[in-house]
Amino acid sequence: MSEKHKHESAVFVLAAVGLALITILTGWKLKQLKYRLINEPGVALFYGMLLGLIATFLPPDQAEHMGNMGNMSLNSTPHMVTVNVTTNDHCPRHMEKETFDTEVLFNLFLPPIIFHGAYTLHQKRFLDNLGSIATFAFLGTIISCATIGACIYGFTRLMVMLGRAADGDFFLTDCLLFGAIMSATDPVSVLGLLSELHVDLELHTLLFGESVLNDAVAIVLTHAITSYSQMGVGHTFDPPTFFLSLGYFLGVLAGSFLLGFVFTVITALLTKFTRLYESPLLETSVFFLLSWSSFLLAEACGLSGIVAVLFCGLSQARYTIHNLSSAGKTRTKQLFEVFNFLGEIFIFSYMGYVLLTFPHHVFKALFISGTFLSVFISRALHIYPLSFLLNLGRTTKIPCSFQHFMMFSGLRGVVAFSLAVRDTSTEVRRTILTTTLLLVGFTIWALGMATEPMLRCLDIRVGVDADENPEELSLEVATGSSDTTPDLWSRLDYKYIKPALTHCGPPLTDSLPQWCGIFARLFSSPYVHKDEEQLCETAPAQDDIICDLEKTEDPPVCEAGDSGSDHQEDLLEGDLGLGNAPALREA
Amino acid sequence: MSEKHKHESAVFVLAAVGLALITILTGWKLKQLKYRLINEPGVALFYGMLLGLIATFLPPDQAEHMGNMGNMSLNSTPHMVTVNVTTNDHCPRHMEKETFDTEVLFNLFLPPIIFHGAYTLHQKRFLDNLGSIATFAFLGTIISCATIGACIYGFTRLMVMLGRAADGDFFLTDCLLFGAIMSATDPVSVLGLLSELHVDLELHTLLFGESVLNDAVAIVLTHAITSYSQMGVGHTFDPPTFFLSLGYFLGVLAGSFLLGFVFTVITALLTKFTRLYESPLLETSVFFLLSWSSFLLAEACGLSGIVAVLFCGLSQARYTIHNLSSAGKTRTKQLFEVFNFLGEIFIFSYMGYVLLTFPHHVFKALFISGTFLSVFISRALHIYPLSFLLNLGRTTKIPCSFQHFMMFSGLRGVVAFSLAVRDTSTEVRRTILTTTLLLVGFTIWALGMATEPMLRCLDIRVGVDADENPEELSLEVATGSSDTTPDLWSRLDYKYIKPALTHCGPPLTDSLPQWCGIFARLFSSPYVHKDEEQLCETAPAQDDIICDLEKTEDPPVCEAGDSGSDHQEDLLEGDLGLGNAPALREA
Repeated sequence: MSEKHKHESAVFVLAAVGLALITILTGWKLKQLKYRLINEPGVALFYGMLLGLIATFLPPDQAEHMGNMGNMSLNSTPHMVTVNVTTNDHCPRHMEKETFDTEVLFNLFLPPIIFHGAYTLHQKRFLDNLGSIATFAFLGTIISCATIGACIYGFTRLMVMLGRAADGDFFLTDCLLFGAIMSATDPVSVLGLLSELHVDLELHTLLFGESVLNDAVAIVLTHAITSYSQMGVGHTFDPPTFFLSLGYFLGVLAGSFLLGFVFTVITALLTKFTRLYESPLLETSVFFLLSWSSFLLAEACGLSGIVAVLFCGLSQARYTIHNLSSAGKTRTKQLFEVFNFLGEIFIFSYMGYVLLTFPHHVFKALFISGTFLSVFISRALHIYPLSFLLNLGRTTKIPCSFQHFMMFSGLRGVVAFSLAVRDTSTEVRRTILTTTLLLVGFTIWALGMATEPMLRCLDIRVGVDADENPEELSLEVATGSSDTTPDLWSRLDYKYIKPALTHCGPPLTDSLPQWCGIFARLFSSPYVHKDEEQLCETAPAQDDIICDLEKTEDPPVCEAGDSGSDHQEDLLEGDLGLGNAPALREA
Repeated sequence: MSEKHKHESAVFVLAAVGLALITILTGWKLKQLKYRLINEPGVALFYGMLLGLIATFLPPDQAEHMGNMGNMSLNSTPHMVTVNVTTNDHCPRHMEKETFDTEVLFNLFLPPIIFHGAYTLHQKRFLDNLGSIATFAFLGTIISCATIGACIYGFTRLMVMLGRAADGDFFLTDCLLFGAIMSATDPVSVLGLLSELHVDLELHTLLFGESVLNDAVAIVLTHAITSYSQMGVGHTFDPPTFFLSLGYFLGVLAGSFLLGFVFTVITALLTKFTRLYESPLLETSVFFLLSWSSFLLAEACGLSGIVAVLFCGLSQARYTIHNLSSAGKTRTKQLFEVFNFLGEIFIFSYMGYVLLTFPHHVFKALFISGTFLSVFISRALHIYPLSFLLNLGRTTKIPCSFQHFMMFSGLRGVVAFSLAVRDTSTEVRRTILTTTLLLVGFTIWALGMATEPMLRCLDIRVGVDADENPEELSLEVATGSSDTTPDLWSRLDYKYIKPALTHCGPPLTDSLPQWCGIFARLFSSPYVHKDEEQLCETAPAQDDIICDLEKTEDPPVCEAGDSGSDHQEDLLEGDLGLGNAPALREA
């Protein structure tokens, strides 16, 4: 590579790193001043736009050059030096201006962010509310996609009538695609604030769980719709193709899920049957590389890497973590924390930068206003009816205040942007990108700032401490009581999966039938046979205690609670995790 | 990017990650089996070659494709997906085959490795032996460069005589360039083993210090020679150009040094005067980004980023670390540990891969054998005479056994490779690359394996524990004794730099003259004035205690020793760090 390009590249990476530094310091200063209204993502977005503004006001030659360097600040790590260098070296610049290096966003920053999101979900509360969360995430996203798609289609018709758009500019598939993109709510922006305010834990779990899972649905949905429109049936409704895409949707979702789980199984068995825990560094490296592989293999297989890494994170947190040494646990958690933190900052500042420097923005006032409107309509149609239905099943209802807050806190962020920016070839896609960016900016700032006042006026309790939360305690009590009927999955998980993958639970030799004795002996914890008494009790009632593999050579012992990472679990999903566990104390 | 390329890229990144995983597990298994002869770098090299072998035996189309993907496995992180994708998308393949993405090696993996090396140097022992280390690193590298250059030049003449090379194939400048490249000894490969064997601490410090510092000299020397030959004076000796390059050499070295230090000052002041230590995550992120910026800015300014980040690491470990919270210290150390560990594995496996897949290898038997010979001659001319000279000044002589071991343990590794692979345009450079790869492979394996037997037959004590090392203790004692005459630099450092950058040392208000009172008040620790008694004593004699900023809101207190990271310092360089400190206990 030429020295000139190298120098240029270094300068731009430096600018990005500087941006990140300023963002961190500003965000931290704001926290110091107890000014919680805006958090890192907002600040990053702001500084990104500032840099973009500067870039646009540079003399044309530099500006055009900065335009070429656009994708540079996307990931702001030195390898982008290479990326641009490689392109700049060999390729005419105009080529480059069309392309965004969004793959980097997908490949380098998104996986750790998504993994961290899933990995840090509070297992116990997540499982208690699994039913509700899944309903919101899966059914909700599809509802919201359909609603937004329909509304936007209506608006585009209106635009055609008003002569603001030619007939055939926007097809229903485009609108649905946009709907899918817009349905991905962001787990990072508002939730940092929520956990900082120690908002009610159940609300937190519902919101976090929903926004983490619905990313998966939105991503796969986007792929499905794209593949539908690429199957050459034009933009008319064609049942066979529709069902084909539906199959594709389900197939990719299931495949990615499975793949994520397979890598968890590999990691869990590796950490269970080797003495890797003697070196936290190796533990962490293996854990990190294997989790990442789930993403890579999924991409290589044409599945969704993000979805795979999401489910991998969920299952790693449920199983593998129990096999790690306490030092390894902390190390792993902290490693992903740093990646997540820096990744978010880089992506959000890049969003701001793109918003002001993307050379092919297409602003369609009607389309934009239509989007803002339809996003809120869809959110309402998504939250209220589903909450109503869920409340029929839940013993602890989702209160109206929660519903209002969830309705309001549907921020859009990283995933929506990365889906929109992936393809900017057609004008429709460019319109979508522009609109998405505006919506992200608006939701991050306006809604983000309004969060705290909103919580106050909805009178949702904040400053809740996990340990003091009566509901939480009641759950512990409830799980403690043995007069419960764990559902099939929990039994399966408790009796077979957990003992096979961790050192916890009843020895497989007991739970498995005679005829698979070899399998049982093969997968039982190497310690089980040594000193039975040290291990978890076999009664489901006490499965609430969790396994913590201390960094000693001794066989792992089970302890009640894990100070390091608060991963707990219970069997109480009599309502399939619809969240009536607390009620059992009345029972 | 097209789905096809994305898929291909993911596959190759996956292969690289898999390679890293196998390497980690093999290396760890070997340790388990107490088979210490070969460590991670060697294993990584082996597996890299294995992959290369597979690649070469693939059907031509795939092989050629794998050739294009060559640079893929260099860094084995998903962003390379983009790199290749970007190139593959727009550029004819043949272009790519010429280029290696060594910039990624330089920009992404080398900085953390070098930084980690410098950051984890044992401050106290390093400073005790600073004089000797500097002599070996600076003078030694220049000697070795000259010797190798001369020998190789002789050999190339011989080759011309024997008709194995045309006259004018190899100029003296080429030979000197090769000499510079070959002079970079590798800090990672043998030293991992040494610290594992707990070899004598002074030997360890000498070797580690030398190999860390001489990378800097070798890198800058290489640049200087390249710039000399590019100044269009052809390959004749031209005094003005020579002195210009000499000036360039010194300028770049000093500039990079200064830049690294400037970023340390920024980090230190930031961590000293803000309450960043309240959040270890922010602390670590800021520390990481600023240290990285030193590299980026140096590259942007046309200085040597590696050298800057090296000195940044050295000074960060001396000053900034005292301002970090104990949690922040651990976090930072562990973060760089992971980067260093994975970076090494990726680079060494890439070396192995390149060794077997680089399509333009030039094997010149005479040149190669000449290199092997001259490398050992130069090492001998470098170690023995300098040790002799140093022993005149040192009170604790460098024993012959140490000299023999140092002579023998000049392994070549990452830096030599990255300097050689940087430019493969001419045949001479390709010959250099091929020879370098062979030498790296040989030294890593043959010498690496011979290390333990060598230590035994030289009867160098292993299994030394830092705390039990009498010499170490004696140093502590010596530093405790106040009848010593610290040299100028140590006084300066102790009285002005340390108090300005950390919470330790005497308040600047005392040490600085009246007329710069404002400066003194500005830079003295915000805590100094609060509770004097809690702070370090102002007597140099007790400066051995170090500052540990606990993660509390209280002003930082000084503690004797720091369990977290064993960073200590002393003033005892009466012989300018030639290492006679221990003798002072006799005094």
